[in-house]
Amino acid sequence: MHLDRFKQQLRFIIEIDKLKRVVRQTILMDRSRRENDAEHSWHLAVMAMLLSEYAAENTIDLFRVIKMVLVHDLVEIDAGDTYCYDDEAIKDQLQREEKAADRIFNILPEDQSKEIRILWDEFNDRETPEARFAAALDRLQPLLHNYSTDGLMWKKNGIKSNQVISRNRPIEDGAPTLWEYAAGLIDDAVRKKFLAK
Amino acid sequence: MHLDRFKQQLRFIIEIDKLKRVVRQTILMDRSRRENDAEHSWHLAVMAMLLSEYAAENTIDLFRVIKMVLVHDLVEIDAGDTYCYDDEAIKDQLQREEKAADRIFNILPEDQSKEIRILWDEFNDRETPEARFAAALDRLQPLLHNYSTDGLMWKKNGIKSNQVISRNRPIEDGAPTLWEYAAGLIDDAVRKKFLAK
Repeated sequence: MHLDRFKQQLRFIIEIDKLKRVVRQTILMDRSRRENDAEHSWHLAVMAMLLSEYAAENTIDLFRVIKMVLVHDLVEIDAGDTYCYDDEAIKDQLQREEKAADRIFNILPEDQSKEIRILWDEFNDRETPEARFAAALDRLQPLLHNYSTDGLMWKKNGIKSNQVISRNRPIEDGAPTLWEYAAGLIDDAVRKKFLAK
Repeated sequence: MHLDRFKQQLRFIIEIDKLKRVVRQTILMDRSRRENDAEHSWHLAVMAMLLSEYAAENTIDLFRVIKMVLVHDLVEIDAGDTYCYDDEAIKDQLQREEKAADRIFNILPEDQSKEIRILWDEFNDRETPEARFAAALDRLQPLLHNYSTDGLMWKKNGIKSNQVISRNRPIEDGAPTLWEYAAGLIDDAVRKKFLAK
């Protein structure tokens, strides 16, 4: 064992415990509290295992999707969770997250730092079928939570249906049949007044 | 899309949100609160990505390890977290967890229910290098938390070093060099009085 290498890996493993303290604008299905990024990442990873048959391309590398969703929010340890409907915060989101990626990923030995960075860049760029499918899950999961809690957080934040549609539309690129379902869910949410028109 | 199949998958995805409410006997590194099973499963999955070079066998199927750790605690939605040092609760742990597995996994379509069950059985049986490595991570992670928090939960629960050694010894089967490190950590914890002798 190269002790320096192992120490860097351990430091990173201890550092990322902080992701459990990054709170999102999603409420748990039982409405008890808001979700954190670590739980969210776990939920996406299990969803990927179960829903890969709906990916736009059926030659998808599921292992890669799972690795991507496991690390996609690590930068929020420094950059915080940026609410997808907060137009002001979104402006400098990438800049804040790039800085966070530089600090956090570089705790790791160089080869692993690079591997995580490549996964994170791929997720953000949405240029591969794997990244598009991962992004679809990252949108579908909060939508399911919002619908299942009668739109509690939508109402609290004054969100309207056109915002939800434009946010979730990219599901179509990663998983067309999941978008079909999601679009129906949004319609139904408007009908049931979980979501303002 | 087969609608019945999709509905079963969705029901499962919503059901497993409850894992975020299963609280463990591990305290977060910042000591703010106890960890839940969903966060713990995420942490293990990322650790698997980073530490696979220490697995006892180097032909390990890392994807399989990650799938195993992602689902290994799902049964605790019904069976609750069984503290590894609670000798009374451990007696009927397997029985409680088998019952939980029957209910929870069977929400899924049959092929996926079987797949998750096989992963869960493999994890419990520890007969494959993948399962032994997954089990090693499942022990190392709480040990890191306990050490990093000066043994807060060990002290609270009156745990002694021989209990910690016997609980963590199986790390050796899955990842010998990680056990070497873990054994040193336990020694140091005793020296620093984080852990009673």
